[in-house]
Amino acid sequence: MINKLVAEIKKKDAPIVVGLDPMLSYLPGFILDAAFDSYGETLEGASEAIWQFNKGLIDAVCDLVPAVKPQVAMYEQFGVPGMEAFRKTCEYASEKGLVVIGDIKRGDIGSTSEAYAIGHVGHIKVGSRTYAPFTEDFVTVNPYLGSDGVNPFIKVCRQEKKGIFVLVKTSNPSSGEFQDRLTGGSAKEESDRMPLYEVVANKVALWGRDHMGDDYSYIGAVVGATYPEMGKTLRRLMPRNYILVPGYGAQGGKGEDLKPFFNEDGLGAIVNSSRGIICAWQKAPYKESFGPFAYADAARQAVLDMREDLKQAYVR
Amino acid sequence: MINKLVAEIKKKDAPIVVGLDPMLSYLPGFILDAAFDSYGETLEGASEAIWQFNKGLIDAVCDLVPAVKPQVAMYEQFGVPGMEAFRKTCEYASEKGLVVIGDIKRGDIGSTSEAYAIGHVGHIKVGSRTYAPFTEDFVTVNPYLGSDGVNPFIKVCRQEKKGIFVLVKTSNPSSGEFQDRLTGGSAKEESDRMPLYEVVANKVALWGRDHMGDDYSYIGAVVGATYPEMGKTLRRLMPRNYILVPGYGAQGGKGEDLKPFFNEDGLGAIVNSSRGIICAWQKAPYKESFGPFAYADAARQAVLDMREDLKQAYVR
Repeated sequence: MINKLVAEIKKKDAPIVVGLDPMLSYLPGFILDAAFDSYGETLEGASEAIWQFNKGLIDAVCDLVPAVKPQVAMYEQFGVPGMEAFRKTCEYASEKGLVVIGDIKRGDIGSTSEAYAIGHVGHIKVGSRTYAPFTEDFVTVNPYLGSDGVNPFIKVCRQEKKGIFVLVKTSNPSSGEFQDRLTGGSAKEESDRMPLYEVVANKVALWGRDHMGDDYSYIGAVVGATYPEMGKTLRRLMPRNYILVPGYGAQGGKGEDLKPFFNEDGLGAIVNSSRGIICAWQKAPYKESFGPFAYADAARQAVLDMREDLKQAYVR
Repeated sequence: MINKLVAEIKKKDAPIVVGLDPMLSYLPGFILDAAFDSYGETLEGASEAIWQFNKGLIDAVCDLVPAVKPQVAMYEQFGVPGMEAFRKTCEYASEKGLVVIGDIKRGDIGSTSEAYAIGHVGHIKVGSRTYAPFTEDFVTVNPYLGSDGVNPFIKVCRQEKKGIFVLVKTSNPSSGEFQDRLTGGSAKEESDRMPLYEVVANKVALWGRDHMGDDYSYIGAVVGATYPEMGKTLRRLMPRNYILVPGYGAQGGKGEDLKPFFNEDGLGAIVNSSRGIICAWQKAPYKESFGPFAYADAARQAVLDMREDLKQAYVR
């Protein structure tokens, strides 16, 4: 799957992943009305609306971008029907040829981490039959529990030729509270000390070396667009690991700031935008030209504009 | 809910939470057969079997223990039907008067963390109506993303009078890879430096102070039974935060090792056992006396034995 991701990024000249993180307030009224007419103001109704919204978005951008990234929390908040909308979204995006990155940020230990991996990127055995419960190609993984938490994901990904992105340095303002803590080294050798995110990055590089695609590893990292200086260091520490970059657009990152995340081959990073694309219809400069009924066209235009903006970040 | 948890622990004299982490291999054949007869060897069949298994366990232990802790990964691996089994398990345990701790280890940022909180311990608005999608009383939270990840949970918990347990020092062998890294302080003052888990513990104490029940905080911590020395320090750093202790039994912890986790009031810790209880029917010394049809009675006996063993850990 990393090979497909890289190939699609090259082919479409778009290191872009569209974040499918729907809130009901992002949805045009006509979609909500239709879903509530059929299912009432219920969890089922909300989930149907989200699914229809996503379907329109996927149809509108699937020829432009290599990947989508549904954020499972936005579905989980609608309970079991929401998880069904998540499942259908992942499945439909795959059918449309997109790489699906499940933003699930799971992380546990041993058989529990393996259960998450099986559920999202693997297959589960029930009696004499096997099923793929959710069908992402990649998932995001939280590293706080150490190798015991990550290795079960790697094990399943090896079998399935799928991959993970490990949280290294997240895009949020308080990510430094724990991730930036200087660690390690002896007290006398200040230079040996490094922030925790670098310790995690070194692990990601190590895990990734044993699980390589053609040019890049199946094991990637998440590094926020909001920290370009750190991105530079992390790019160097993880030369063959793809970096998934959140925080572009709504969270403040710009195309020109993203140079540090790319390698000299013009590859190595894929930039997420969620609200900037899926809510484009609600905001300038798209609001005037695209009304709610053209929300998907607005998203398409936002992707085209993002693609142009990102060209400042890499040369290929 | 923390007040209810403490009251129930006192009343039942059992600082025990039963981990409902079912794998199909833990289930007696008669339960699997019945479920597969009705639903086939499908995700629905597996989920029905798990739900029936849990129902038996809850009925057998609900008068003995204050709480259960379903591990969501074990349900999520069966996809959408699995999540329905999780939902029903949480709901049924509540009906039986148990405190429900959702072991979800979620953690994201801002509105995304809030979505997890809403989904699991809160209410979601759909049009003019509101719903509780999943109905846990507490959830476990991963702190890697810092306050931005934890505060949205606290916000929802305040509204709902519910709580969280933040991962501080997990029970697995590799938990030290990142959690034990010595951090902070200046290079010259070795004594200022502390392991990351203590940094997180100090935050938990701080978060907890603003969100107190009668004697203990709504914000608790997860500290593995497998690290009693660290437990001692962490008990001191978080005097008013309840500690959820995994790793007893199958993972190696014993009653007498658990003293450091309790306060002088004999409270402050609740110990999880999963396989030791729910698989008791498969293992010595219970296997002989309790066959598969009496799996729930075996679980009950294992709880009674655990309650005795834990009395070595606290005085009240």
